[in-house]
Amino acid sequence: MKPYKEMSKDELVSLKAELDKQFEDAKSKGLKLDMSRGKQSVAQLDMTMGLMDVFDSSSVLKTEDGMDCRNYGLMDGIPEAKKLLGDMIGVPAENVLVFGNSSLSVMYDIISHAMTHGIMGSTPWCKLDKVKFLCPAPGYDRHFKITEYFGVEMITIPMTLEGPDMDLVEKYVSEDAAVKGIWCVPKYSNPLGISFSDETVRRFANLKPAAKDFRIIWDNAYAVHHLYDDKQDTILEILSECEKAGNPDMVIELCSTSKVSFAGGGIAGLAASKANLDYIRESMTVRTIGYDKVNQLRHVKYFKDINGIAAHMKKHADIIRPKFEAVLDVLDRELNGLGVGEWTKPVGGYFISFDSMEGCAKEIVAKCKEAGVVLTGAGATFPYGKDPKDSNIRIAPTFPTPEEMAAATDLFVLCVKLVSVNKLLESK
Amino acid sequence: MKPYKEMSKDELVSLKAELDKQFEDAKSKGLKLDMSRGKQSVAQLDMTMGLMDVFDSSSVLKTEDGMDCRNYGLMDGIPEAKKLLGDMIGVPAENVLVFGNSSLSVMYDIISHAMTHGIMGSTPWCKLDKVKFLCPAPGYDRHFKITEYFGVEMITIPMTLEGPDMDLVEKYVSEDAAVKGIWCVPKYSNPLGISFSDETVRRFANLKPAAKDFRIIWDNAYAVHHLYDDKQDTILEILSECEKAGNPDMVIELCSTSKVSFAGGGIAGLAASKANLDYIRESMTVRTIGYDKVNQLRHVKYFKDINGIAAHMKKHADIIRPKFEAVLDVLDRELNGLGVGEWTKPVGGYFISFDSMEGCAKEIVAKCKEAGVVLTGAGATFPYGKDPKDSNIRIAPTFPTPEEMAAATDLFVLCVKLVSVNKLLESK
Repeated sequence: MKPYKEMSKDELVSLKAELDKQFEDAKSKGLKLDMSRGKQSVAQLDMTMGLMDVFDSSSVLKTEDGMDCRNYGLMDGIPEAKKLLGDMIGVPAENVLVFGNSSLSVMYDIISHAMTHGIMGSTPWCKLDKVKFLCPAPGYDRHFKITEYFGVEMITIPMTLEGPDMDLVEKYVSEDAAVKGIWCVPKYSNPLGISFSDETVRRFANLKPAAKDFRIIWDNAYAVHHLYDDKQDTILEILSECEKAGNPDMVIELCSTSKVSFAGGGIAGLAASKANLDYIRESMTVRTIGYDKVNQLRHVKYFKDINGIAAHMKKHADIIRPKFEAVLDVLDRELNGLGVGEWTKPVGGYFISFDSMEGCAKEIVAKCKEAGVVLTGAGATFPYGKDPKDSNIRIAPTFPTPEEMAAATDLFVLCVKLVSVNKLLESK
Repeated sequence: MKPYKEMSKDELVSLKAELDKQFEDAKSKGLKLDMSRGKQSVAQLDMTMGLMDVFDSSSVLKTEDGMDCRNYGLMDGIPEAKKLLGDMIGVPAENVLVFGNSSLSVMYDIISHAMTHGIMGSTPWCKLDKVKFLCPAPGYDRHFKITEYFGVEMITIPMTLEGPDMDLVEKYVSEDAAVKGIWCVPKYSNPLGISFSDETVRRFANLKPAAKDFRIIWDNAYAVHHLYDDKQDTILEILSECEKAGNPDMVIELCSTSKVSFAGGGIAGLAASKANLDYIRESMTVRTIGYDKVNQLRHVKYFKDINGIAAHMKKHADIIRPKFEAVLDVLDRELNGLGVGEWTKPVGGYFISFDSMEGCAKEIVAKCKEAGVVLTGAGATFPYGKDPKDSNIRIAPTFPTPEEMAAATDLFVLCVKLVSVNKLLESK
């Protein structure tokens, strides 16, 4: 089929009639599928149930150095969990703190704490006239929600396939002392699924911030989430790059086992320089006597080490790879050459990112919903939920089965075609 | 022996010589005991190890209404955990949210959030010139640390055996709009071990705050922590009292299983009016996708219901009651009638509170430390760590064995005597 843009009005009208009919048929099937959130499927969760066998009432719940995990204490995490999470992201254990089950909470707390106390002696952000954050987009909606919630002005930075537009990042960071941070998902990014190039990471490490309390929030959520054995992204380790560049305190890195073990029952980690960690420990002392160390120990006993994690992630990949491929197959087969959209082909992570023709995303998502397929709200991947081009749509293929994903994507491409035809007809 | 204050200088000098010798003997024993923190003993933790048998890899980790606890979602807690924690404090499940393992974190977050966002539409506290909190003292040091950390001005309210001095509380709360809250441990209070009388609770519920965002932080940490079957304190349920009084939104109540199951692996709850909960849920949405629901479900399966909790708490009581009694026996035997101190005789909770002669507490704690017994720092039970009378000492009898507690208390009373004699000699 030829590109839609080259079609005459008559051709478009007749195509529209056909697509409308297909859509009515699809609607009558009563689909009920959700590809809106990056959630593990039941098969993945089942695959990790051995986590529940690790302990029984005869277990000794002590750390390797004899600390009782059942009691208060060890505020910043058990040593072996620091090592495990550190190995996931290539950072020494002494640079890691271990928290509860949510790295999102840790990021929220970082911003919240900076608002009330600043960072390492800086003016509390709530006392400043203006605080700004750089938001590479499309990006993770929940990052943007945090900064929005605290009244931080968000500046959209376009994403390329190499990472954020670093010319712009460098300009803002070096020229504007109100720019206090940037949100990043450096590996298998949400939603693009791309990984930052070595040059991008090095440019990050070599930033010359106008604000001394500027922080890169490096949310390495998909560090070990490969889809293939033979095609895997690697990224440079940011902490050591920052140290090399003379900016040891500029980055705070996050990771978690939410998509390794259980989202509702995993552990989260934070990695940073010693100076940052000492500062963070100060406020932790006020906030808590310690996180759930029993669950930290449970994870260590189950996965044992980074090899255990890697082997486990292969099993996850075996379950979700077919779903990614089901989506990509349908997109390739149905949309290639039509000029109505572009999409990424990630080799890891939890998402595929789709860009429709400008001004079509909202309508596509609405159409899908009308026929029973829920997608992430259009715009969600941009600050304030506003995609200036109204074109980005995040596809989360992991939760449904491959067959369901194929069916959902069949509907999705139909909606893309239909909305694109309508759009083109408007201008005829 | 007669009261020390009635002794002549010569009598005191000779007593001092004898006590000095006893102290040197005691020091030579090389004691190493800690009665500083309210921690469970190993025997208590061992007694709860069945918690680790609740799940294995064949378990179905779903809530009663079919939600998968392993995955994201159910941000504010699983229904059956709401019920369990609600029953612990006599509040309906729909008024309860369930968090991670630390109610202290929840309290920190309440204050932190009020600083940045106010409460239910009020001005963020960080935008106000002055924010004040009432701090009944002696009280829980970690409460005071939170408000101190956020620069809140703390006003000490004397504690009586009925609860805080309510005349003062009423005066401050009704007259000063900068007074935004009060810290309370209403039952088996930390450190006094007393419980608020019905009149105290009713006066709390009937407060007429000048600040519309005034909140009572009702830390019901020891709700089910009785030491005896036949002597148990009960307190009026504050949420319903506040509602009756036309102040439904004035209180936020906390509880946890830190001293029911494991401190490093329990669950915490918050109870409040629907309006408060709706408001709190708004910020939770930004902060997290959900807490550890697997652990919430584990607790419900283990304890089953409030009867299970009550039965379990009897076992705790059997372990810690002898320790309380060991302390009280030594205090009674050694200090009765000497006029050098007064102490509480709690029937629940985790602490005994001792008041020395004025100006002696710091010295007593230092002396104990010199001979190997660690007590909570003198002053810790007051705002800013400053006890105006330098007389309150918190004794935490739960962690050591009864024999160790007896030995530690032997040393403690010796130090009390010695420091008191020295004090009296100073004025001779």
